[in-house]
Order: sequence, then C-alpha cells, then structure tokens
Amino acid sequence: MRAVEWNPIGPAVRVIDQRQLPARVECLDLLTVQAVADAIAGMVVRGAPTIGATAGFGLALAAHASDAASLAELWDEIAGAAHLLRAARPTAINLAWALDRLTLRVRDARPASVDAAQAAFVDQAKRLAEEEVVRNRRIGQHGAALLADGDTLIHHCHTGGLAAVEYGTALGIIRAAHEQGKRLHVLVDETRPRLQGSRLTAWELQELGVSFEIITDGAAGTFLRRGEVRAVLVGADRVAANGDVANKIGTYMLALAASANHVPFYAAFPTSSVDLECPDGDSIPIEERPAEEVLGLSIDGQPAAPAGSRARNPAFDVIPHALITALVTEAGVLRPPYDTALRQATLEGLTA
Amino acid sequence: MRAVEWNPIGPAVRVIDQRQLPARVECLDLLTVQAVADAIAGMVVRGAPTIGATAGFGLALAAHASDAASLAELWDEIAGAAHLLRAARPTAINLAWALDRLTLRVRDARPASVDAAQAAFVDQAKRLAEEEVVRNRRIGQHGAALLADGDTLIHHCHTGGLAAVEYGTALGIIRAAHEQGKRLHVLVDETRPRLQGSRLTAWELQELGVSFEIITDGAAGTFLRRGEVRAVLVGADRVAANGDVANKIGTYMLALAASANHVPFYAAFPTSSVDLECPDGDSIPIEERPAEEVLGLSIDGQPAAPAGSRARNPAFDVIPHALITALVTEAGVLRPPYDTALRQATLEGLTA
Repeated sequence: MRAVEWNPIGPAVRVIDQRQLPARVECLDLLTVQAVADAIAGMVVRGAPTIGATAGFGLALAAHASDAASLAELWDEIAGAAHLLRAARPTAINLAWALDRLTLRVRDARPASVDAAQAAFVDQAKRLAEEEVVRNRRIGQHGAALLADGDTLIHHCHTGGLAAVEYGTALGIIRAAHEQGKRLHVLVDETRPRLQGSRLTAWELQELGVSFEIITDGAAGTFLRRGEVRAVLVGADRVAANGDVANKIGTYMLALAASANHVPFYAAFPTSSVDLECPDGDSIPIEERPAEEVLGLSIDGQPAAPAGSRARNPAFDVIPHALITALVTEAGVLRPPYDTALRQATLEGLTA
Repeated sequence: MRAVEWNPIGPAVRVIDQRQLPARVECLDLLTVQAVADAIAGMVVRGAPTIGATAGFGLALAAHASDAASLAELWDEIAGAAHLLRAARPTAINLAWALDRLTLRVRDARPASVDAAQAAFVDQAKRLAEEEVVRNRRIGQHGAALLADGDTLIHHCHTGGLAAVEYGTALGIIRAAHEQGKRLHVLVDETRPRLQGSRLTAWELQELGVSFEIITDGAAGTFLRRGEVRAVLVGADRVAANGDVANKIGTYMLALAASANHVPFYAAFPTSSVDLECPDGDSIPIEERPAEEVLGLSIDGQPAAPAGSRARNPAFDVIPHALITALVTEAGVLRPPYDTALRQATLEGLTA
C-alpha cells in the first residue's frame, strides 16, 4: 500500500489520511492543487519523502487539469501551482526538490504539445514516487548491515512506508534487518506533539511483526544511560551540506543522550532530502506549528493545560553533525567528514 | 492553600486532589492509613516534600485512630502503618525520611501514655509540614539570587506549592524572584506522561502572574541551542551523597542539553530529599509506573497507540552530578564538590 499514488479516475492524488491512524486506514482523493497543498500543510500526509512525492503528484494534477491553449500558458500555470505547493511546509527540502526535479524532467523532454506535456507530468510524477521506493530499499539494505541480531533500538518520530511513499527510511532499515531474520526490539519514542511514534511507527511495527514498546520522548535518556540500547535510528527532513540534519523536534536531545552514552546515532534518508545549498543546519528554515498541537491534550475530557495558556511549537530540531555516527543514504553508509561524502552521494543518488 | 494538612474533624488528612487540576481545585479527606497510602501511590498527592508531609500525617492518623491499650501496642501499630506507607512509592526519600523523623521525634519526647503519644504524633506531623514550608521559602531566597530580571527559564515537571506542601522548591525560586520584581519568562516542559508541567506548573504560574509558555519536553533542546534560555530549574525526588539527583523522567536529557549549551542547570530541594546512605544515583530505586500512563492518550476520542501495544514507563531519571551547576537547598546554594557540601547542608538543615 502506497502513502500516495496517482488515481487516474478523477483524476486525483490518492493519499492515506495519516491523521486517522491507528484507528483506521482511510484514503482520500485530492482533486485540486489547493487540496494537495492543504493536505501537506495539515499533515494528512507527512514524512519528507512522502511530502515530496505528494507535491509531485500535485503538480501533475495541475498540469492534467489545465485548459491551457499553449505550452507557454501551461508553464505559467505550472509555475503558479508549484508556488502554491512549495509554500505548504518549509522544512522538508523534498518538497522543493520534487517540484524542481519534476519540472526539469518535463522541460528536458521538450514536449511538443500541451497534451504531451500534461502526460509527461503525470508519468514523471509516478516515476519520482517509484524512484523513492527504490531508494528506500537501498537505504534498508545498507543500513541493515549496521544492526545485529538481538539489538534493542530507539526510533524517533515515524519514518516508515507512510512517511516515505513505501517501505521507509530509518524504519526501512529496521524492516530490512527484520526481513533478514535479525530479532530486533524497538523502543518507540511517542514523539510529541503529534504522536507519530505511538500512532504510526507502533502501527507499522505491529503490522511487520517487529517487537516494540512505546516510551515517552523524555524516557529515552534513561534507557541509553542504562546501556540497554544498541543504536538510535531517525530520519531527516533536510540535510545540510556539512551533514547537519533537521529532523522532528526531540531528535536533538536524543542525539545528545546517544552521544553521551556512546551509542551509535544514525540518520537515514534518500538524497532527495539533501540540500547542498544549505551550508549548515542553522540555515535550514524551521517550521513553527500551531500551539493547539501542544495544548490540545485532554485528560478525562478536561483540557490538560489551563485556559489561556500559550505554547511554542517548533516542529523540527537541528542535529549538529558531530553528534551523528553515520548518515545512511541509498548511495551507502556515509561516515564523517560528511561534506565530501554527501556531495558524492547526492551525485550518485541523482544519477542512479 | 496547603497541598496537605491535618483536618481535626474526622480526623483526616486533607489533601488537594492534584489529578483534578487544572480543571478544578478539589479537596479530599483521607480517613484511614490505607487511604493515605493509596493517595500517595495513585498520585492524588505528588511531589517529594508533599509526599513526605502526607506520609507524616498518615502516621499521625494511624496513631490517632489507635485503640492500643499500651504504648508497646501503639508502637507496634505505628510500625505496621509506617511499613504500609513506606511501600507506597519507592523513589522520593522524603517519604521514608518523614516517617523515620516523625517516629524519632515522638520517641525522643518519651510520651508517658498512649494519649500523650497520639497527641505527639499529630503535633509533630504538623511541625514537619510547617518546617517544609520554611525550608521552601529559604530555598526561594537562596535561589532567587541566581536569576536576573528578564531571564527566560526552562522548568521541568512541577515543583510548586502543591508538590512541596506550600510555596515550592524550584518553582519557589521563580516565585521568590518574581516577588522581588524580576520579570521572568518560563518555558514549561509539559512533562509526559502525566503532564505535571502543563497541568500544575502552568496553573501555578498563571495564579502567580508569571509569564509562561508550554513546550513539549523534546522541544527544550531547540530553545537551549538557540541561546534563548538563561537557566534550567528542576526539583529532586532523591539526592545521593555524591550529588547525583533522581528527578522526573526527562530531566536527564534536559540536563544534557543544558550542559551542551553552557546553560546553568539547577536542582532545588529541601535537605529532606537528601539520602546520604545512597552513595550515587545508580543506588536510587527507580519506580516503574503503569504502561497506561504512556498509552492512555487519545486523539479525537481514538486511542493514540494501536491496541495491544506495550509501554515502558520509568518515572524518574538519574542526573549525574557532573551535569548540575548548583544544588539549591534551604542551607544555601551548593557548588561542587557536592559530597562535602551536601553532608554539611544536611546537618545544618536538620538542626535548623
């Protein structure tokens, strides 16, 4: 089952509504570019690679729905749609990457007519999504070699198939090792505020038959300090040229705790998450999301926070590269110094 | 308003039911030793000094309700009640401390009759609670000198009046500085799993008129890394002889993040939280609480974790003393090396 795919009936971008899990698997058909942008902004779909693929399909939808009389007019409309989609979320570079890459590929194909360009957008959006899945499986293969039979791991947020079109990145590594017969146990960070860990990662691990227990984000340090954990695995929303990683809020403290206890800390991502134009993590724009995500918890039907409380809600951390043991990409396991390794991996990844 | 006090009508131990806040302030009269033990175990009352005072009143209740025909019989009953109360929660040493201290004081007074001993238990339990409040105010005075006008602070869990009979420990420092006219802003860790931060700390800060914003526990690292935070303040459930501190789960990662960003990290507690018989933090028993506290969140009425999920729920972290800038007690602000400073402070605290 794909987190996002092209539905020729409609036509539409068909997505799994990740907000409904684990209660139910519910698909939505997004019929307009605006609906696609809203689904990304509202986290109906989330996870950097899935956001990228969804944006690509959104652009294909814009192309397909166009009444443009000329190629020039079509390209104008595409630029408008890309602008709308690009603004949906700021941190995951996969969004801009997919829009740019898709547009470039269609331009490079030099379509002779509006019809041909429309068809090319749809075909290339599908290809981008397929390529993401291939990347994930390679990440899984490379990363699985880092895990041993009997390992206990900590995983933060959600990086499974739903986050990465299919198969997953960091969770794909766990899946690949599990498929190799390695018995693993995963301590699943619940990942406040949106609980992607307890909602999505726990659900995917349960489906895969991987042993797991849910912990609060703040408890990870205790398990690391006790020596119970063999590795920490996370994904990435954007990776800077120097190897600094932006990832879900809470990842920085987790990386500090892993480092302090000499536990390997791995970030896994496809090269579509790499932004060589960001020199370091501090150049990555960090999304601030609504306070309601923090304040919305209730206990026995009563709000957990007093009325009138305010909240801060940065959605992502920056993890300095010095805290990261290795970066796992489809091009292989990268070790420091990351700058040259990332440049080369990105070239290989793009040409693969 | 006291978190716990003696209610001569009943007689009973009157407590504020901390589970009901911030929705409502509700008092409960606990009429038996078993009810007091259950209230401690079930976190109707929580916070190390409040747990200690409540246990003291519980023992007074046992004495008061006794039909013992002789002092020997009374002491037997007291030993049984103390055993029951002591088992209610394992980590906060204040519980054992209050039971031991209360018993010692009554023994030292050499009551001549059962009646006299019963009266002494009630009087001394009240005195223990009063002394805790005096300690808190001293902690507040000593600690307030560490804070400057305009500071932004991070506070974890809840250490206000409800946690410490009245006034508070770490939150008492914030209160004292606020009362001195210093304008402070507190980033309140929500403190999963039981949300003492968003439920209790936010409520007390709102009552006091101190500016605050609630953040998820995992977000603290980002604010520390950005240089927005001037100090981190926490309480303590037990302090080992070498200065290692047991405190609410999540505190260890917070201490690591403060240390990595050169932000002072202060633990504030009365000397009733010091256990000189524990050489270090690893000797402190860490309570594991029910999985339901982690798994019980719901989103739009649906469980956040898939059915059949398991959880781990250690309630406390150990914070190595090397991560702690200073310990704030009623005897003053202690700097490393902590072993001698704590021994001396505990002597001063006990004789004060």
